[in-house]
Amino acid sequence: MSFFRPNIDSLQGYVAGQQPQQGKWIKLNTNENPYPPSPAVMQAIGGITGERLTRYPDPVATAFRQQAASVLGVPPSWILCGNGSDDILTVVTRALVAEGGRLRAPYPSYLLYETLAGIQGAQIATVPYERDWSLSDAFVSDCEKVQLAVLANPNSPSGTILSRARIVELAEKLPCPLLVDEAYADFSDENCIRLVAENERIMVSRSLSKSYALAGMRFGFLVAQESIIERLLCVKDSYNCDTLSIAGATAAIADQAWRSENCKKIVATRSRMTEALGDLGFDIPPSQANFLWCTHPTVPLRPIYERLREERILVRYMEYADWGDGLRISVGSDEQVDACLMMLRMMV
Amino acid sequence: MSFFRPNIDSLQGYVAGQQPQQGKWIKLNTNENPYPPSPAVMQAIGGITGERLTRYPDPVATAFRQQAASVLGVPPSWILCGNGSDDILTVVTRALVAEGGRLRAPYPSYLLYETLAGIQGAQIATVPYERDWSLSDAFVSDCEKVQLAVLANPNSPSGTILSRARIVELAEKLPCPLLVDEAYADFSDENCIRLVAENERIMVSRSLSKSYALAGMRFGFLVAQESIIERLLCVKDSYNCDTLSIAGATAAIADQAWRSENCKKIVATRSRMTEALGDLGFDIPPSQANFLWCTHPTVPLRPIYERLREERILVRYMEYADWGDGLRISVGSDEQVDACLMMLRMMV
Repeated sequence: MSFFRPNIDSLQGYVAGQQPQQGKWIKLNTNENPYPPSPAVMQAIGGITGERLTRYPDPVATAFRQQAASVLGVPPSWILCGNGSDDILTVVTRALVAEGGRLRAPYPSYLLYETLAGIQGAQIATVPYERDWSLSDAFVSDCEKVQLAVLANPNSPSGTILSRARIVELAEKLPCPLLVDEAYADFSDENCIRLVAENERIMVSRSLSKSYALAGMRFGFLVAQESIIERLLCVKDSYNCDTLSIAGATAAIADQAWRSENCKKIVATRSRMTEALGDLGFDIPPSQANFLWCTHPTVPLRPIYERLREERILVRYMEYADWGDGLRISVGSDEQVDACLMMLRMMV
Repeated sequence: MSFFRPNIDSLQGYVAGQQPQQGKWIKLNTNENPYPPSPAVMQAIGGITGERLTRYPDPVATAFRQQAASVLGVPPSWILCGNGSDDILTVVTRALVAEGGRLRAPYPSYLLYETLAGIQGAQIATVPYERDWSLSDAFVSDCEKVQLAVLANPNSPSGTILSRARIVELAEKLPCPLLVDEAYADFSDENCIRLVAENERIMVSRSLSKSYALAGMRFGFLVAQESIIERLLCVKDSYNCDTLSIAGATAAIADQAWRSENCKKIVATRSRMTEALGDLGFDIPPSQANFLWCTHPTVPLRPIYERLREERILVRYMEYADWGDGLRISVGSDEQVDACLMMLRMMV
């Protein structure tokens, strides 16, 4: 006999990409940054003494809030820090989505949204993207019991974006808040931060895992109006961010020169990679993220994933019901990308 | 108009003890360890390169599980790692307690249990301790809709414990799982780890914040039977523990010589402190934790808290409805405790 809630018993659980802890892999499966983080991050972490670690961390990560506020042009009180942006998504879902409620998300997108709805005992109410990865007004229709809408922008696995103007349109037609998940926005030409001031129902989440090369450190944040943040502070764990990550994240976001340089490199590699994969016959929607969504009109993709894996090159093979499959390949270093391209040239 | 769930709108939120980030304080209010952590911890953290931080952490913290398993004498698969034991409490509550359900806890105890129930849209169903801090069978009565029982052992704010035998009795009469919150168990003569193998409905949570002096690092864990852990792994955030804290926690739990030596010092100071406060007329139940619960038959306590605060000595003043107030004073270093005692001698 189970003591778990029925929705927990039936939960599939979010399956993250493979994270080999041993051996040498070319890892292009979970959109990590191929370059080490800003040296300022390691210096800040190294500056934390054992004595500091005996004490609880600052519950709201004031130092980070202040630094991020000055970078983003919003007040510090509009920022909620989280143990990775997954923590932010979790906190927002717990605060807004009730048992029996619904969470609106496009499809295919980040699979975690469905897991988070399931943990609440709520339903995910997905709306499919159009074949060109635009999103119709179906996203704002049939919204009964929809308590939160989430939109990854850039989206995963497609790497595509909806324009800021389109997001405003959608938000205005929704009966509930819209969380724009901008984990990849630093690689994009456009973002939605400034919409937060214009519409209290728009929230934007960010991650330091991708564009700051800090997936292992776990730090993300939400930008929303102060009254929203105040309430969410009651829902998060009291000490959800630790002293080491607060120090590292504060140094990371302070070093915008590093971020800008790093993003330029990734975007340049992304262009080259898009062209090379196009030459091999892959169909790739225009990516504004640090990965490419690759389908192929004739070649089956799962065997490609498996053969790359045998060569210790990890890409993400994804299969979406009623949509089809594809390879999501992270933009690695030039060397990693060249190794992957070389193998692919032998396969397709 | 609010978009939050009604239970979130009415949430009080857990109020943690004050964490001054600036200035010199004698901090005896949040049960931190007064001594720096094992040097092995800082060495392990220092060994993490920037390159490692670009990668996601091990989702299940295998290294820690293996090390903790060998220390505790349970299989690694019986251990769930969390971002502090608050994360563990959160995950267990989300997995077991539904909207409209009830969470059983004694009173007075850790206030977070009520907040966690509230976030679920559930009720806390408290049962008062007896005046001698024993717990009657009322704890296992009137259990309709009770989906989880939680028992801090040692309890906060009292520092007292229930015997392992009593906990077995209670667990067997409960219709739901019992989570024994052992954040302070390393300072106690007894713990419940071995009960997990005997009763699948008993879970034990632990923290590295107190007895390993790592409150700033955020690491805790749950010991439960494998089938329970498997399900909880689907509920936790995929990467809830970061690479730095996994390395630090693994080194910390491997250094049992450090822990044992540290606990001996704390326990010795606790004895001395208990005696000295007793001489000042305070009533103190026998503490098995790293803090003392101090009431006084004649002297009002809030002014004492306030005057200590003026002297930059922080203790925790707590006032429980239908129970009364008290000072919870952490066992600091001998020097910190002497400074606090000196001030108290001038006040009472």
